[in-house]
Amino acid sequence: MSSAQEIASTDVAPDERFELTRKLTAAVLYAVDREDQAQLADLMEPLHAADIADLLEQINAYDRKRLIQLYGREFEGEILSELDENIREEVIAILNPVVLAEAVRDLESDDVVDLIEDLEEPQQEAILEALEDSDRIAVEQSMSFPENSAGRLMQREVVMAPEHWNVGQVIDFMRESDDLPEQFYHVVLVDPRLRPVGNVTLGRIMGSPRNVQISDLMEETFEAFSADLDEEDVAYAFNQYHLISAPVVDGNGRLVGVITIDDAMAVLDEEHEEDILRLAGVGEESSLSDRVMDTTKKRFPWLAVNLVTAILASLVIAQFEETIAGFVALAVLMPIVASMGGNAGTQSLTVAVRALATRDLTGSNVWRVIRRETLVGLINGAVFAIVMALIGIVWFGSPLLGAVIAISMVINLVVAGLAGTIIPIVLDKLKIDPALASGAFVTTVTDVVGFFAFLGLAAMILL
Amino acid sequence: MSSAQEIASTDVAPDERFELTRKLTAAVLYAVDREDQAQLADLMEPLHAADIADLLEQINAYDRKRLIQLYGREFEGEILSELDENIREEVIAILNPVVLAEAVRDLESDDVVDLIEDLEEPQQEAILEALEDSDRIAVEQSMSFPENSAGRLMQREVVMAPEHWNVGQVIDFMRESDDLPEQFYHVVLVDPRLRPVGNVTLGRIMGSPRNVQISDLMEETFEAFSADLDEEDVAYAFNQYHLISAPVVDGNGRLVGVITIDDAMAVLDEEHEEDILRLAGVGEESSLSDRVMDTTKKRFPWLAVNLVTAILASLVIAQFEETIAGFVALAVLMPIVASMGGNAGTQSLTVAVRALATRDLTGSNVWRVIRRETLVGLINGAVFAIVMALIGIVWFGSPLLGAVIAISMVINLVVAGLAGTIIPIVLDKLKIDPALASGAFVTTVTDVVGFFAFLGLAAMILL
Repeated sequence: MSSAQEIASTDVAPDERFELTRKLTAAVLYAVDREDQAQLADLMEPLHAADIADLLEQINAYDRKRLIQLYGREFEGEILSELDENIREEVIAILNPVVLAEAVRDLESDDVVDLIEDLEEPQQEAILEALEDSDRIAVEQSMSFPENSAGRLMQREVVMAPEHWNVGQVIDFMRESDDLPEQFYHVVLVDPRLRPVGNVTLGRIMGSPRNVQISDLMEETFEAFSADLDEEDVAYAFNQYHLISAPVVDGNGRLVGVITIDDAMAVLDEEHEEDILRLAGVGEESSLSDRVMDTTKKRFPWLAVNLVTAILASLVIAQFEETIAGFVALAVLMPIVASMGGNAGTQSLTVAVRALATRDLTGSNVWRVIRRETLVGLINGAVFAIVMALIGIVWFGSPLLGAVIAISMVINLVVAGLAGTIIPIVLDKLKIDPALASGAFVTTVTDVVGFFAFLGLAAMILL
Repeated sequence: MSSAQEIASTDVAPDERFELTRKLTAAVLYAVDREDQAQLADLMEPLHAADIADLLEQINAYDRKRLIQLYGREFEGEILSELDENIREEVIAILNPVVLAEAVRDLESDDVVDLIEDLEEPQQEAILEALEDSDRIAVEQSMSFPENSAGRLMQREVVMAPEHWNVGQVIDFMRESDDLPEQFYHVVLVDPRLRPVGNVTLGRIMGSPRNVQISDLMEETFEAFSADLDEEDVAYAFNQYHLISAPVVDGNGRLVGVITIDDAMAVLDEEHEEDILRLAGVGEESSLSDRVMDTTKKRFPWLAVNLVTAILASLVIAQFEETIAGFVALAVLMPIVASMGGNAGTQSLTVAVRALATRDLTGSNVWRVIRRETLVGLINGAVFAIVMALIGIVWFGSPLLGAVIAISMVINLVVAGLAGTIIPIVLDKLKIDPALASGAFVTTVTDVVGFFAFLGLAAMILL
C-alpha cells in the first residue's frame, strides 16, 4: 500500500488531498483542553512539520498558546520555518528559550536566515545566540547580503570537488566527509581559485566507473548566480532552465553557497501570491491568520485609492447633471458602459502583468501586443455595442439612446485594451510593480472615459 | 567568472535578468531575412531550448515559419516542450516530418506525453510513430491515465532497488545499468511485490560505506502517489512537504513511475497562471501569442457575464428613476458606493480563493475567517462612511445625503466581506472552481446591494 493511501486510511491524519481534517484539529484541541500531553504527542507524531504549522495557523491564538506549551520539547525548528510570518513571531515569543534554542539548532543555514530576517532585533539575537559558533557565522554572513538576494537564499553547505578529480576520488571524498548536507543534487566542480566551472549530478557520478574524469560528466546547462542577484531572477532562471541546484558566487566569482530548487520554488510561490494579492488590491503578505485590525489596515489604502478614482468618476458625472436630469434613463444605463470598460481593462492588464512577470512581453513584441489588445477591444466593443443598442431601443424605445450607448461602448473597450496594456508596461519601465498599481490607473481611465463618452455623447445627440 | 556573468557579457544572449534582448531577436530575424543558415545556427547555439521557445513565441507567424525552415535539423525536441500550446501546434505543422521524428526521440516519456496530449489526432499519431517501440508503449501507457493525473505527469524511467540490498549492491547495479534517467534524485526501495517502501537520496548513498543496509538510509518524509491522483494534489504535496521526487503506484500499489520536482513546479506554475487569469475573467490558457480572434473569443464570455450583472444593477437603478429625477446628485454619487463594495468584495474573494487553493481555509477556521471579513468590512465601511458623509455635506451641502451615503457604504462593505468569503467557499463545496466564478457573483451582489441600499435609503430619507 502506498504511503498516500496509508495516510488516508488513518482516521485523523491529513486526508487524501493532503488537507488537514476537521477531525484531526478537533482531536488535537480536545487533547489540549484535557492537558493530555501523551495524547497530543501521539496525534502530532505522524504529522509533517508543514502540517503542524498549518494546524497552528488555523486555530485561534488562545488555543495556539496552550498547544505550544503542552507540546513543549517536541517542537521542531522546521515547524517555525513553515509558519506564516505573523504567527511565527507570536510562536517564538511563546516558546520556552531552551526549546527555541534546540529547535533552531537543527535547521540548515538558509532556513535560519529565512526564519530570522523578518524578526525584531531581540528575537533575532535570541536565535543567533542559540546557534553554534560556526552556524552563527554562516548565518551572519548570509545576512550581510541584501534582502531578497541570492546570498540570502543560498545554503552555505556545498559539496565541491576540484575539476581534475576522477569519479573514484569524488566518491571517496564524500564517504570520508562526515557532514554532507541533508539534500544535495550536484557536486560543484571548481577551479584552483574556487570558482565554479560546472555541475555534475550525483546520478551520473554513481553511474560511472571510478576512473572516469569527473569533468567529462558535467551538465550541459549550467548557471551560477551572483550573490547579490535578486531572488526573483534566481527563481525565474530555475523555472526557465529547469535547474535543480545552482552555485552562488561572490564578487570575485568564488563559490560561496548553493541554491536548491525547493528554495526557488518557495520564492516562485511567494511571487505568485504577491501578484495575485496585489492585482486584487490586497496589501502584501496578507494571510488568513492576520487579525482583524491588521487586515483592516492592510486593505484600507487600496480602498482609499479606489475612493479617489470613484470620486474622479463622480466628478465627470457631475458635469452632466443637467443632461441626466433631462433624461434619467442615462443614470440607469451609464454604469454598464463603465463596468464593461473596467472588466475589459482588467482582462488586458492581467495578461500584460503576467507576461511582464514571465518576461514574455519584451521590446520585440510590445507593439504587436498593443495592437492585438486594441483590436480585441474593438471587436468585442462592436459586438456589445450592437447588443446594447438593441437593449437601449427595446427597453427605452429610443434608437438615439441605443446609438449613444453603442458608440460609447466601442470607445471604452478600445480604451480599456490600450490602457490595460500600456499602463502596466509604463509602470514596469518606471520600476513600479505593475501588479501593484495598474488596477487603480486602468479603472480610473475606463470609468472616466466610460462616463464621459456616454454622457458627453448623450448631451450632444439626445438633448 | 560565473556562467551568468559570462552570458551577460556576450552581446546578444539573454541579459543578466535572463530576458531575451531585442538585439538578439533582431539579429536572428536579420539572419532569417538573409537566409544565412550558418549565422542563424551561431546565434541560436548558445541559447537554451526555453529561450529559443520564447523567441519563437515573440516573433510573428511569418518570421516563425521562415526561421524554423532555415533552422532545419538543428531543431530539438526540448524546444517543442517549452512552447506555448497554440504555437506548438503551428510549429509541429511546419516542421519537416524527419526533423520532428528526430526531435521527439530525444525526449523523456513524460515530456512526450505532455507534448502530445493536447494535439489533434493526426499530429499525435505522427509523433507516436516516430518513437521507438519501447518508448511508444511507455507513452501510450501514460496516456491511458486520466488527463491531469499523476500517471500523465510521471516519467516511467525509475531507478529502484530491493529493500534488502546494501549500498555496494546499489552502486554496482547503477554502474552496470546503461540507461539511467537523465535526472534522478532518489533510489526507490521496493518490496518483493514491487511496492515502494521508501526513498533514499543519492547523496546519502554516496556518503555511506558499501556495507551499510540501504534501508537504513531511507528518508523520513515519504509520499507515494496513486497514478490517478489529480496533478494539482501532487503539486500541492510537493510544495507542502518539500519533496524532490516521489514514486507513483498503480491500483495494486505497485511502482509504475516517478514524478520529479520540476514537473510539480511546472504544474504549480500553471495553476497559479490559471488562478490569476480566471480571477481576472480571462479565458484559460490565454497567452500573449494568441491571435486576435482567439483572444476575442476567449474574453467574450466573461464580458457577456459582466454585461448581465451590469444589467441587473441597472434594473435596480431603474426602480428608482423617480428618486433620481428628483435629486440628480444621487446619480453622481451612486457609483461610489457600488465601486467601493466591488473593490472590498474583490479583496475578500481573492484572499478566500487563494486560501482555498493553498488549503489553508478549512472547516476548522471557516467561521473565524467569515467573522473576520465581516468585521473588516464593518470597520473600513465605518471609516469610509465618515469620509463620504463629509463629502456629501461639503459637496452637496446636504447632511441627509451624507447620512444616506454613509449608511449604504457600511452596508455594502459588510456585504462585500460576507459575499467575498462565502461565495468562493460555497462554489468550492459545489466543486466549481472559485477562481472562475466568484468574481461575477460577488460583483453582482455588491452592485445590486450598493445601488439598492443607496437609492432605497435616499428614497426613504430624502424625498
